[in-house]
This record gives sequence, C-alpha cells and structure tokens, in this order.
Amino acid sequence: MEQQEEPLGGLSRHDHAEELASPPLSPCEEKSAMMRRSENYLPVPGEEKSLDRDFDDGKGTNESIPMKTLYAGDGSLLHPHLGPHFSDGRRRVDYVLAYSVQKPSSIRRRSSRFAEGNFFRQLRRSLSMRSSRAPLQPKEDPELAAKEQRADYHEDDKRFRREEFEENLRATGLELEKDEGTKIPGVGFLKIHAPWNVLCREAEFMKLKMPTRKDYNVKQGSNVVEKIRLFIHKVTTPLHPDVDTNQPENVKFLSHPFSREKQHLFNLSDRDKFFDTKTRSSIVYEVLKRTRCTREKYAMGITSLLANGVYTSAYPLHDGDIEGANAEPNDRKLLYEEWASYSVFYKYQPIGLIRKYFGEKVGLYFAWLGVYTQMLIPAAIVGVIVFLYGCATVDDNIPSMEICDPRHNITMCPLCDRACSYWKLVTACGTARASHLFDNPATVFFSIFMALWAVLFMEHWKRRQMRLNYAWDLTGFGEEEEDHNRAEYELRVMQKTMKQDQSAPKEEKVKLTCTDRLPAYLTTVVMMGFMVTVTFVIVFGVILYRISIKAALHISSYPTARSNIRATVKGTAAVINLIIIIILDEIYAAIARWLTTLEVPKTDKSFEERLIFKTFILKFVNAFTPIVYLAFFRGRLVGRPGNYLYVVGSYRMEECAHAGCLMELCIQLCITMLGKQLIQNNLFEIGIPKLKKLLAKRKSELEEEELSKTLQRHEKDHFLCPFAGINSEYMEMIIQFGMVTLFVASFPLAPLFALLNNIIEIRLDAKKFVMELRRPIAAKAKDIGIWYNLLRGLSKVAVIVNAFVIAFTSDFIPRLVYQYTYSPDGTLHGFVNHTLSYFNVSDFEPMTDPLEPMHLGHEVIICRYKDYREPPWSSTPYELSKEFWAILAVRLGFVIVFQNVVMLMSDFVDWLIPDIPKDISLQIHKEKILMVELFMKEEQGKRIAARDHHSPDNFNSPSSAPDSHPYPPQPRSRPVNHARAGW
Amino acid sequence: MEQQEEPLGGLSRHDHAEELASPPLSPCEEKSAMMRRSENYLPVPGEEKSLDRDFDDGKGTNESIPMKTLYAGDGSLLHPHLGPHFSDGRRRVDYVLAYSVQKPSSIRRRSSRFAEGNFFRQLRRSLSMRSSRAPLQPKEDPELAAKEQRADYHEDDKRFRREEFEENLRATGLELEKDEGTKIPGVGFLKIHAPWNVLCREAEFMKLKMPTRKDYNVKQGSNVVEKIRLFIHKVTTPLHPDVDTNQPENVKFLSHPFSREKQHLFNLSDRDKFFDTKTRSSIVYEVLKRTRCTREKYAMGITSLLANGVYTSAYPLHDGDIEGANAEPNDRKLLYEEWASYSVFYKYQPIGLIRKYFGEKVGLYFAWLGVYTQMLIPAAIVGVIVFLYGCATVDDNIPSMEICDPRHNITMCPLCDRACSYWKLVTACGTARASHLFDNPATVFFSIFMALWAVLFMEHWKRRQMRLNYAWDLTGFGEEEEDHNRAEYELRVMQKTMKQDQSAPKEEKVKLTCTDRLPAYLTTVVMMGFMVTVTFVIVFGVILYRISIKAALHISSYPTARSNIRATVKGTAAVINLIIIIILDEIYAAIARWLTTLEVPKTDKSFEERLIFKTFILKFVNAFTPIVYLAFFRGRLVGRPGNYLYVVGSYRMEECAHAGCLMELCIQLCITMLGKQLIQNNLFEIGIPKLKKLLAKRKSELEEEELSKTLQRHEKDHFLCPFAGINSEYMEMIIQFGMVTLFVASFPLAPLFALLNNIIEIRLDAKKFVMELRRPIAAKAKDIGIWYNLLRGLSKVAVIVNAFVIAFTSDFIPRLVYQYTYSPDGTLHGFVNHTLSYFNVSDFEPMTDPLEPMHLGHEVIICRYKDYREPPWSSTPYELSKEFWAILAVRLGFVIVFQNVVMLMSDFVDWLIPDIPKDISLQIHKEKILMVELFMKEEQGKRIAARDHHSPDNFNSPSSAPDSHPYPPQPRSRPVNHARAGW
Repeated sequence: MEQQEEPLGGLSRHDHAEELASPPLSPCEEKSAMMRRSENYLPVPGEEKSLDRDFDDGKGTNESIPMKTLYAGDGSLLHPHLGPHFSDGRRRVDYVLAYSVQKPSSIRRRSSRFAEGNFFRQLRRSLSMRSSRAPLQPKEDPELAAKEQRADYHEDDKRFRREEFEENLRATGLELEKDEGTKIPGVGFLKIHAPWNVLCREAEFMKLKMPTRKDYNVKQGSNVVEKIRLFIHKVTTPLHPDVDTNQPENVKFLSHPFSREKQHLFNLSDRDKFFDTKTRSSIVYEVLKRTRCTREKYAMGITSLLANGVYTSAYPLHDGDIEGANAEPNDRKLLYEEWASYSVFYKYQPIGLIRKYFGEKVGLYFAWLGVYTQMLIPAAIVGVIVFLYGCATVDDNIPSMEICDPRHNITMCPLCDRACSYWKLVTACGTARASHLFDNPATVFFSIFMALWAVLFMEHWKRRQMRLNYAWDLTGFGEEEEDHNRAEYELRVMQKTMKQDQSAPKEEKVKLTCTDRLPAYLTTVVMMGFMVTVTFVIVFGVILYRISIKAALHISSYPTARSNIRATVKGTAAVINLIIIIILDEIYAAIARWLTTLEVPKTDKSFEERLIFKTFILKFVNAFTPIVYLAFFRGRLVGRPGNYLYVVGSYRMEECAHAGCLMELCIQLCITMLGKQLIQNNLFEIGIPKLKKLLAKRKSELEEEELSKTLQRHEKDHFLCPFAGINSEYMEMIIQFGMVTLFVASFPLAPLFALLNNIIEIRLDAKKFVMELRRPIAAKAKDIGIWYNLLRGLSKVAVIVNAFVIAFTSDFIPRLVYQYTYSPDGTLHGFVNHTLSYFNVSDFEPMTDPLEPMHLGHEVIICRYKDYREPPWSSTPYELSKEFWAILAVRLGFVIVFQNVVMLMSDFVDWLIPDIPKDISLQIHKEKILMVELFMKEEQGKRIAARDHHSPDNFNSPSSAPDSHPYPPQPRSRPVNHARAGW
Repeated sequence: MEQQEEPLGGLSRHDHAEELASPPLSPCEEKSAMMRRSENYLPVPGEEKSLDRDFDDGKGTNESIPMKTLYAGDGSLLHPHLGPHFSDGRRRVDYVLAYSVQKPSSIRRRSSRFAEGNFFRQLRRSLSMRSSRAPLQPKEDPELAAKEQRADYHEDDKRFRREEFEENLRATGLELEKDEGTKIPGVGFLKIHAPWNVLCREAEFMKLKMPTRKDYNVKQGSNVVEKIRLFIHKVTTPLHPDVDTNQPENVKFLSHPFSREKQHLFNLSDRDKFFDTKTRSSIVYEVLKRTRCTREKYAMGITSLLANGVYTSAYPLHDGDIEGANAEPNDRKLLYEEWASYSVFYKYQPIGLIRKYFGEKVGLYFAWLGVYTQMLIPAAIVGVIVFLYGCATVDDNIPSMEICDPRHNITMCPLCDRACSYWKLVTACGTARASHLFDNPATVFFSIFMALWAVLFMEHWKRRQMRLNYAWDLTGFGEEEEDHNRAEYELRVMQKTMKQDQSAPKEEKVKLTCTDRLPAYLTTVVMMGFMVTVTFVIVFGVILYRISIKAALHISSYPTARSNIRATVKGTAAVINLIIIIILDEIYAAIARWLTTLEVPKTDKSFEERLIFKTFILKFVNAFTPIVYLAFFRGRLVGRPGNYLYVVGSYRMEECAHAGCLMELCIQLCITMLGKQLIQNNLFEIGIPKLKKLLAKRKSELEEEELSKTLQRHEKDHFLCPFAGINSEYMEMIIQFGMVTLFVASFPLAPLFALLNNIIEIRLDAKKFVMELRRPIAAKAKDIGIWYNLLRGLSKVAVIVNAFVIAFTSDFIPRLVYQYTYSPDGTLHGFVNHTLSYFNVSDFEPMTDPLEPMHLGHEVIICRYKDYREPPWSSTPYELSKEFWAILAVRLGFVIVFQNVVMLMSDFVDWLIPDIPKDISLQIHKEKILMVELFMKEEQGKRIAARDHHSPDNFNSPSSAPDSHPYPPQPRSRPVNHARAGW
C-alpha cells in the first residue's frame, strides 16, 4: 500500500488537487458537498486498481463500450481530444458521472477529517471557507487503521454498485465510455451518450413538446398595435442583444408532444440538432433517475449513489469554451459575449437563449430579475423626483423655518439625566431641515405609488410569464409531482426498516411518520425561537450601546465630540447593525440548512420548501428587526420629563430628534441596503473569487494554461463549481424587494439603490452561471413557484407597514391636523410650538435634574418637550391632552383608510389587467385550431385510405386506426357543403 | 287557410295549449324564451303541411330513418308507446328536438304579439307572469297580413334548414326518427339516437374518462383513521340516503380516457349500460353543436337554429316516470324518493346519484349547498348559545340596570323639535334590556368566530370539491375554453358583415369591437348608476317616512299610540323596506338580463359572467343599503341639541335609541332575512306553483290524467319547464351568505335562520330539478367558478364590516374604555351617566324648544343627551370632549387590530389546511402508478411479441407500435434484477 503514495501522473496540477480534498474537488464543490451530506460522505480511498483499471495510466486508453446502434459504426476521429465526444469523435457526451479511483494513501489518511461529521464542524468550515482552508491535521492512531479497513470494504462495495449501475444503464440503451485518471488523477469519468432511439423513446415518455414542420405567423394584435410594436422595436434595437436566432421573428413552429408514430410531423432532417444539448442531457438524467441498483439488499437510485460516494458528481457538459484558441462559436460563448458581460449592462437579456442553454427554471429566474429591474426604473425615477421635491421645498418648510429661527428661542428639557442640560431648539435646525427631505407630503404619494407599483409589477410579471410560457410551449405543461425520494430520506427509511425487521412483523410499507421526525421538529422550533431571540437581543444590545455612548459623549468635555454626538452615535450604531446582520445572515443560512437536513424531508421539492421557509423567516427577522424598532418603537416608550421610562437599571430609553425618527430610520435603511449590497454582492461575490484566482494564478499560472489546452470538456467542467440551485439568488432579491417596498415611505431613494445593484447583479449572476458553475440539468418550470407567493405576501404587508410609517413615524398627520383644526390662519405657522408640551423643572424626580442648570446662561423654570400633554398649570398636569387623542384618532383613521383604499385599488388593478395577455390567448386558441386541423386532415386521409381497403365498420380492429389522437373523422357532409355553398 | 282554424286533434288539452302560446309551450318556457331572445323570436305560423307532413295525423305513423348499424336490425317492439325509445322499441331516444308544424291560423294571428319585441313588454310580462297571463289582444289590420306573408316565407326557410340539418346529422352517424303532432298538435319531434359507433367515436374525441376493468381498493388513511371513519359511518347510517350503488364502497375502478384502440381495457360486456343516459345525451349534444347548416348564405349552428325558431326546443329525456302505474325503478324515481322529498330532510344528499343523473355542474351545486348547510349547523349552535348568553346575563347587565333604576332619574332632551318634550331615561328601560341581547361581549367573540368560520367553510369546500373531483374522475380535466358563439352574437356579426360588404373591402374576419358595443356599455353604466341611485332614494324615502311618522305620532294625543311609537315605526319601516327589496329584486334581475343581451356577449360563458356581475351588484346594493345605513350612518349625523342637523327643509335626522342602533339593525336584519326567505322561496317557489296547479287541475283534471297515461316520454318532458341554469339558485345563496357573515356581529341568530331556510331550500330545489324541469344537458365542471371568488370576496369584506359594527355600532368599546380608564371601581357602574352630555335648555335655537316644557311635571334647566361633548359650563361648551377622541382612537385601533388579526388568522388557517386532502393526493398518486403499470405491462407484452416477429430497431415503422400511449418500454433489467434480489 505504501508505494501508492507516489503521485500517479507527472502533472504538478495533481499535487495541488491532492491538497484540496480527495477526490479532487473544486473549492465550491468541496464546501457544498460537505454541507449537503456530511453524514454519508466518506471519500473512500481505493486500492482495487487491478480490478477496476486494466489499462495504462498514460495517454488515456479509453474503454469504449461496443454498441449496436444505427449509425455508430464508423468511429472516425473528428475531434480527437477536446470536443465533448466519445473517443470515436462522433457520439456526443450528453452526461458525465465522476467517481474516485485508487488514490495514494496520503489522501486516505485524511478521511478521518470527514468521519466526525457533525454540525459544528460544518459551521466552522463554512465560516472559514471564505478566507482560508482549514489546516491539515494528520494524526495516526489505531482507530484510523480500523477506518481504513472499513474504507476498503466500502470501496469494493462501490465498485460493484457502479458495475451494476452501468450494466443497467446499458440495458436502457444508453452508450457508455470510461475515462479513468487520464489528466486528473484519482478521478474516473463515465461518459454517457444517448443514441437516437433512446432519445426518441424517452422524449415520447416525457411528452416533450417538439416543434413540428408546421409553422404559422404570429400576429400580435391589430394593425395599429402591430405598427406601434414594430416602431418600438426599431427604436430599441440597440438595446436588444445581438443573438442571432435563425428563424424569422414572427414565425412560430407549432409544437406537439413527440411521438414515434408521428415522426412525419416533425422536421427530422438533422437528427443531431433535433434535440438540443440541454434536452439530450435532461433525457439522460431522466433515464439515470429511473435506473436503480437492486442487486444489494437496498435499492439505490442515482441520488443515493451520489450521496454514498459511489459516484462523486454527475453533470451535463457545457457547450464549449468561452475564450482561447479552440473556441468555435457556440451558445455558451454567445451567452458570454451578449449576456454575461458588464459592457452590455444596458441591453435586454437574451432570455430565449438562456432558456435554450440552461432550461426553463433558470430562464424564468433571469426573466423575473429582468422584469423586476425594468420595473425599478420608473420607481427609481419617481423616487428621485420625490427626493428632489423634498430638497426643493426645504426652504419653504414652515416648521423647519420656525425651528431654525433664533427669535423663537424655545428652551428644551434635557435629553438625558444629570449629564445633559437644557438646550435651545434652534440647535436642532440642521436635523429638522434634513428630516424634511424624507418627511413631506410627496412621501405619502410615493408610498401609495409604490403599493400600486408592487401590484403592477406582480401583474406585469404574471403576463410576462404567460408570454414566456407560450413562447416556450409550456402552456399545456402541468407541474409533474416529483416522486423521487431524497437519498437521506431513503437512508433513514432503510435504518427504520432494519430496526423494525428485528422487532416487529413486517408492515406493508415503511415511511417516516411524525413521531420519527418529532425530535427534528422540536429542534427546529427551539432553534428558530432561539435565533429570533438572539436577533432581538443583539438589536437591544445595539440600543443600549447607543444610549450609553450618547451619555458618555455628553459627559465628555470635548466640544467637538459634543457637537457631533448624534451623527457619530447614529453612524456607528448603523454600521454595527450592518456587520451583525451580515454575519448572522451567513450563520442563519447554515443553521437553516442543517435544521432542514435534520427533518429528513422526503423529496427535493419538500426539502427546498422547508429550507426556503426557514431561511426566509430568519433572514427577514435579521434584516428588519432594527428597522422595525426604529420605525415603530423608538421614541414611543420614553415616558415624559419627571417620569421617564428606564430599562436595565438606569438606562433611559432613547428619544427621537425633534422632527421624528424618520431621519434615523432613513439612515439605517440607507446603510443597510448599501452596505449589504456592497459587501455581500460585490465584495463576497466579485472580490473574493478574483482574489482567489489571483492567488491561484501566482502558483501555477503556466501549468494551468497548458493544462487547459489539453483538458477535455468533461475534465474542464469537473473543475467548475456544481450548480446549487437558484434559491439563494431569489432570496437575496426578495429581501431587497422587502427593503424597497416595506419602508419606502421613509426612504424614497431605495428603488434607485436597488436598481443600481440589480444592473450589476444580473451580469454578476450571468457570469457565475456561464463561467463558474457546471451546467445545470435543465429543469422545466411554469412559474417561479413559492417566490411569487412570498412577493405577494410582502407587497400586502408593505401596505400596512407604510400606512403605519406615514401615520406614526412621520409628522404628516400632526401637521395636517394642526393645519386644518388648530391653526389660526390655515398655515403651519405655530406648529412647532403646538407640538411641544410644557414642563415645570421643579417637577423633576430627585437626582434626575441637570447638573448644570445654568448651562444656557439663565435660569430655566419651564422647559419644553415633544409630546401632547397637559401643561403643569392645568387641572390634570402632564396627562395626555385632547390634542393627543384627536391626533391619535386621525392617525388610526388614516391607517384604516390607507390600508383599505390601497388594497381595494390593488385588487381592482389585479382584476382589471387580465393575467393572460389578449394576443397570447388568441394565439393559443389559434394554435389549438391549427393542431386540430392538422390532425383532422390526417384522419380524413386515413379514412379515405381505409375505406378503399377495408369494410366501413372496421373501428373495432385496432390496426385500422393506428393514430393515437382521437380526433373524430370529419363528417363527410362538410366538404360537400362547402362545394354547395358556391351554387 | 280558414279551415285550419279547427283544432287538429280531438283532445281538449289542445285548446288549452293553444291558448298559452304557439307552439304549445309550458308556462316557464314561454316566459324564459321571451326573456332570452325576443328580437329573433318569431314563432312562425306554418302552412306547408303538405310539404312537411305526408302522413296521417292520427295514430302517429313515425318516420324512421333506415340505418346500417351493427345491431339495429330487428325492431322488436318492447315498449310500444311510453318508453324513451324509437318506435322499434330498441333504440333509445337520447335527445329530442321539437319544432312547430302547421298550426291553425288562430295561433298565427297572435304572432303580432311577439313582433313588437322590446324591453318594456318583456318587463311587463315578466312581472305579470307570476300572477296571471296577459290577456289576448286580437287585432286585425293590414300590417298583420304582410307579416303573415313574411311568416310563410320564414316557415319555408325553416323547413329547408331543418331538412339540411337532419341530413347533416345523419351524416355524422346519428339515427333519427320523426314524430309529428301525434298527441300534442302543432308540435313535431325529432328523436335522436346515437348508435354504438358514434358513441365510441365521440367519447374518444371528447376524451371522456370511462372506468376500466381494473379496480383497486381505496384505503383512506392509516388503520386508526380508517377505523374512526368506519365508526362514524356506522353511527350516521340512518342519515345516509338509501341509494344502492352496486359496487362496494371501497373499490374504485381506474378510469381512463376512452379510446377505441384500447377497448380491451374497458368493461364492455353490457354495451347499453356502458354509457349512461346522461353521457349519451351529452354526446349527442356535442354532435349537435358541431353540426351546422351551411347551405344558406350564413351558417347556422344548433343555437342559431333554436334562436331563430327553426327548432323550438332541444332537450334530453328524463329516465322515467316518478309515480303512476308504469313507473319502473329508475334513477329519477330514486332521486325523487331519496332526495327530492321533505321527509328525508335530515339525510345527506345522494350527491353521486345527482351527478350521475344531472351531471357535474348540478352535482357540484348541491354538494356546495350541502356543505354550506352542514357548516351552518355549528354556526347556528354557537349563535344560539351567544344569544342565550345575552338572555341569561340581561339581568346582570349594569348599564341596563342603571337605566331601569328609577332612582337615577335622568332627564333627557326632547327627541324632536317642538312636538316632543323632555323625557325620563327610565322609559327606555325595555329597549336597553333588549339591546343587551345583541350587544354583549359574546358578540365580539361571535364575529371573530364567524370570520374564521367563513374561512373554514371555504377550506372545507375546497377539500370536498377536490374529493368529488377525485371520485368523479375530473382530476385531469381542464376546463375547455368554450368557443361556441351565442346566436345573438352571430346575428350581430352577420348584420355587420352585410353592412361592410356594401361599403368596405373584405377584411379577414369580422368581429364585434368595443365601438360596436359602446352604446350598450354606456347604457349599462347609466342604467346601473340609475338603479343604484333609485335604491338610495328609496332608502332615503323610508327614512323620511320614519321621521315624519314619528313626529306625527308624537303630536297625536292618543296615549296608546305614543307608547308604541318606536315599535310601530320600526316595524312598518322594516316591512316597507322588505317589500321594496323584493319588488326591486325582480325588476333588477330583468334589467340585468336585458342589459346583458344589449351587450351581445360572444359566448355563453361571457354572457353568464356579465349577467352575474350585474345581478350581483344590483341585488347586493338592494339588499344591503338599508342595513348599511342603519349600521353606520343612522344616529351619527344628528348634530346636538341646539344645533341639530336638518334635511329636506326641516326634517331632523333620526337618533338611535339610548343603547345604540344595534337593536334596530337587528330588527331590520331579522325582518329582511325572514321575510325574503319566506316570501321569495316559500310563497313564490312553493305557494304559487301549487296554486297554479290547483287552478289548472280544476279545469282539466280528468283529461290530464288520461293524457299522462298515453303520452310518450318526450311528450311528457315537453310540458316541463326548460332548464335555465343554476345561477339564480347560487345568487340567492350568496346573498344569504352575505346576510350571515356581513352583519353577524349584530344578529347572532342569522346562521340559525339561514340553516332552517336551507334545509327547506335543498329539498325545494331538488323537487324543482326532478319534477318540474326538463333534464339538463350534463355539463362538466371542476369547481363552482365565479361563485367561489364572490364568496371569498364577501368573507373578506365581512371582516371589515364586522370590525366596524363592533367598534362603532355597538357600545362595546365605550364600555371597555369606561371600565378600564374612567370607572372609579373597575365596574360599569356610572357608565350610563358617563355617556350622557349636559345641555342647558336656554341654549335651544328659537322655535325648537319643546311646546310642553312642563311635561315631566317640573321645570327642566339641564337635560342630557347621548354624546361625548363638553358641558355648558366648560370653556368650550358643546365641543367634542377628550373622552370622545380617546374612545374614537380606541375604536379605530380596534378596527385595525381586528381586521389584521382576523385576516392573519384566516390566512394562517388557509395555509394550514392543505387544499387537497392527504388521502386523496395519495390516491391520485396511486392511480397514476397503477395506470403506468398497466401500460408498462402492455408495452412489455407487445415488445416481446414484436421481438419474436421483427427486427429490434423497428420503431420507425408505425405499424409495429400501434399503442397510442407512449410509456417507455420497461428496461429489461428490472425483472431480471428482481429475480436476482432473491439470491
């Protein structure tokens, strides 16, 4: 065994790969594989080289499985090395399974690292992954030897399973070719090719809709509409991506579920291109999913095989290279040039091509992101206008003028106990002016606008989705219920079965019940509650930080520190919040995934849903708790001078600035949005990969370049990260959507920030998909699923939240009430005075009065504070006044009216705009008719033929009606009547 | 022509029928036919007897069309007269078309009555229809002669069309038999029979799901669940209808779309029963819809033919007689005994049988009605408990105790100007006690309960619907888009085409644009606005009536009148409201129909939707305006003593009784609900038909009895009313649902009343469907369509309305606020005093102070009124007080909290309960697997057979794969592996 410690090949790349993990995984793969299935993942050192590999290690003598296909006879070597083909250069590689083969024992030694498999290691690793690799911990002990023993047994087992699986695959008609350890040592590849007959059979089974020969003209609307459309199209030509679709724009081929008996309907002139690469790989994947190893005690499907390390990865191949000498034109290159590049940021996305290359699910994500970004443009424009309106009217704003007017000379009560003293209102002038930018009547208009905008966005998306469904021939496609169990689930069922076998008589079918999952559910509930509490505690901690720092700064005698008190405190607190949010976000994502694996969901769909649910709650609470506190709680639980509210001993709760808390809410939102996007997207997603590349390049620049010239497609793709779903991308966008809609009343620039971020985000994601990830298996989807519901829920909540922000956080309602009831001249003159109550300084509790009562230079008898309370000289001093109740009533009334009016308007807009665009529903109808006509013609032809040969009542013998589509024969009378109509 | 005035047959029934209309229509048919299509309806006197009828009038020599079917050779007369068979007694009549043949000119003369055709005649007739027939207006003028000429031409035309249509029908394979004027003179019948091959062909085309031979066990849930289910079933056995379904309960046959090539899958042992009567008739109807007359210039389908009077009616036949000597057991009789009878009111409905007989759409209506009624039981029980709680606590209620306590001795301000005088609060004792019944804390609980009840009802229904969809094999059924144009639409398009032919060059396709419909839309908007205004005006009129009567009664010096003032006024006003509502309901229904016909909707579906929309708005406004006024406006726009609000000159707006308006709202609701249900359902739907029958019986008792013995099935059915859809039934229920949910906070007995009504309603509707209506064409439906959305909308509105009723109409919030803020001892003692403000009588406006200020026996200086205002001695006398604003704020806050909490709870419940019951989704999954297995087996068998005979790569030749269902061949590996697993 020791001699195998020597590297197998002469490539220095090998050494590097060896260090990373065994078998050589790309960095992302390593992480995600561990995250997914640490408990099953035993990366299996092997020593059965003699059994598995009876050929040279050198140039790569590939084991090609002889096949009896229609045309695979002559194996002329067209693309000898680099194309995605078998060694015969003709048969295309549609799918690749990778597995680990015999490796040097230095790797095997490290298997101990994987065996401990618990949550904390995962967490630790997931955190350390971003910065550096965990150091190796070589340790030799007797336990390890036992593990190696077991590992050998496992490797044997795996090889048998592989053999059986490959045999079963061959039985389904697939063609296989093995390629072991040619360039990447320790990794074997099983290349899979689907011959024409398998493709046809499976396409028929999967009811794939394929284009028929029959094409027709897509006419959109009436002449005028068509002209306008053409005009717009001409104007926006530079915005369209330069993607050459061969067929003319207005012609669509009628599509029909593929059927071998109806081959004459389809255009099969070029068999190699009839099924595109995406379709071919998804067909192979379908076969893989169905094929199972049953020879051992427990049947295993491909997911179980992957989870147990029998195969290490499975992926379809990219179309070709993006750059370099041997990059002939291909879809991937086209996507790279016309989509995944910052230089085309202003262009539309080539959604059709994206769908053609990545499948419908990814296509829908980018289409959705595009629609969202597009819809953000008007929102951003209106937001900027609202902001500019605030800027323009800041000098005409009477309340801030009054505050800034030194003649008013209002003495305010101290902001903290003892340390602070009385202060002049005029010192709050700057804050008051700044507050006006975000707290003016235009804000109210803007929140109504944004509520309707959200509805319009949803409607627009629904229509766009329908349009795409039509264009992509998904109209008849019903979401198939996935009945493919997850590997973890199968494992647990297996364990349960084993237990039951020993104890109880056999039942019909073992499945996991609620009782089995109860511990996991309990853990979930407890952990979720704990996490939410942690978030709250942290937010509360930041509040305490703010209070204590403020008091400390007040005590300090540096005048510069004092003058910048508010800004400093606000700024640092927001940054602290931001950092905590970003850190917790990562932790929560890991915890949500861990909790979901604990629950052992049955199917991938269920897993996804549970995971999304948890992640959404945690991330949402995390992102919005500080904001909600600022908007609705800050400054409300203050008490009044002489009777302040204290928390944690002697901390007096913080007050808002005179002009309300809106300003601070705005700062917090701004920092959170900008910071989150800058740090999470740009730093994490752009910066770190770049940095990594830079570091990696320095090491092995030359070798890699050379390598990339000689590596085959499947080997190149093996170094890419595996595709991990698009849910994290969606989640990011949903949180952003929440920021844009929920508190938009306080921060009209949010849509602009979101827009700028998304323009980068699109291209960033595109680059990731095209360059850094393995090609995903094309998944069909009609809609964006659960995300739509979340969006809908958010836009509903947004209405209520905005109503409360306007009514309670802003001073909009008090101003309105003052203007129309209390104001003597119908203007806001005197409003500031009206909002301030009187306080007699002799009523301070002992030990809370200011230490320097003469700070302002004169004795203060009455100070003012912001609240609606009775003056000291009334019969009920310091009680809430009638004005308070009146304004409260108006505020609440406003909330009711706003909520219900906006909801009604939303429902009305929803009802007004049909979900299916008129022209699309017409086209769908037309397509149906064309299809019926096509079959009618056929049936008629057949009947005539049949009548010539058989007796008329032949419908009982199946041979006479081989057509699978039961369109009734056209009654003979119709053609006759048409002729007669000409009489 | 004159000699034809003689009656043709010797039956006196004929004379009677002649008087009704021509051709003899049943009463309802006459009405509805006119309502539907007056503009096209020319009931066509004929004189081409010689052309159309070349056989005797006497015994009925039926013209049977010779056919070449498989088994229609021997025409042995099994049921010579009465069964629904052709004259050969074997071929079943699946459908009947009736048309008018030559009639005596006395009838023809009356055609003038139909020619004028405008809305007001319709309206007049529809109103007079309920009471008596419009008198004949025989008038002879030259115009009439010209009309007769035209009529003759029309009759010719019609006969030709009929001939062509029948020829085309025969070409589709249907078999026809004519039966003219045998018993019912002037009416010809075309009996249609669908032979086996037509049935098969059409079933295949319509993709009808038929049961296959394969059956399987339906196991519902786990063992425990199953046991509970069985136990419940056993306990409720007496409640189940005694409908014998031949198959065991737990066995379900796998069903599959019928296909002629797969006949071996289906159990065709009894061909006569494979397609049941409902299916047969709907198949024939499908053929009828497709067949068109094209020989004339404009093609006409069956709807156009019916609308133009070429045929007068079209209907499938009932299964058999209900009672009488020759009533062998049949489904109709079974339905009559086990469903359409008041004696089985406590039983479940035989939904399966209803669906089997009437089709899915009707079945769903009754299933929905059943679920609704069932769900009303808990609501009624809780409602009664809440009411009883009110009764039980009425003596402990402190506010009413205080009011009734003569020691409190509170002097109230006069209730009207001049005529009324001061009064003692103690006189309102009775009202206060009664108010407590409906205004107590339990009411709040009850409205929350009912909001959740509504959600639970919707959820329960969704699940029930899913269950029915599964049981009825509708799971894969997609609502087919109806593209069958309405006759009126086709007529209008025809007219437009004719105009365009003359003026403009031909366009591709003529259709009605918005411009064509603009006048109709304008009319609709104007009329709808007008109708709503009328409703408002009438409600306002009733208010004025109430005010003036009250004042008048106050003036009157009869003490008895005075004491009963309130009760009298309330009672009469509510009754007047009720009568107006009922009258307007009828008028509005007619207007909505008229407006919809004006709009000329394209399809029946669109017609239905538009009609429902209009009817719903009008009926809803009509039913709820008085209630909304009482709940939210009455007593709020009163002003205060010394400054009352006056309307229409000098009417002072009415106040509520001391304990709030809830009492009056309750009375109004009670009278409206009870009255509407009693009068509309029981009087109109039971009473008047009974009365009619009684009257009719006196006339022709003997003859009719004799007639019924000799009449054939299709003749008997001809006398029944045509089926007019179930929308009016739904509408009735929706309005009731509104009553039950919208104002339930004020009237907890509403669910009980609704429950009692519905128990009758179900059987009433059942009787109507089984006995009085022609059999409807079985319509497929997956759900209850638009009604579900209306229910959803209503239950959403109900939350808000109930929130407002509790917050503003009831005294719940003021009591609460008083108890927790103002009350010195935390009880309601002193609450009454707190709600009353003070008024100094010297502040009365001149001429409004009472005429008899000494009415109470002493001089009054300060009187009290119910409001929260400052006392006369405050600095701002009679201003709204702080208490008012505080209470208003709490009220509004309650609305916000209630609305959002209940909505959240509803959404939560909605999310918690899966729409598809677990067991059903399991069953559906199981069915899918069974189906795939079935086909897999078949494909495998075929492949083996094929392998023996052909070369392996034979998939290109269509003959080798005659199977229409592309299930992939089972990979050979699986059975092998199964065998290996046994190693």
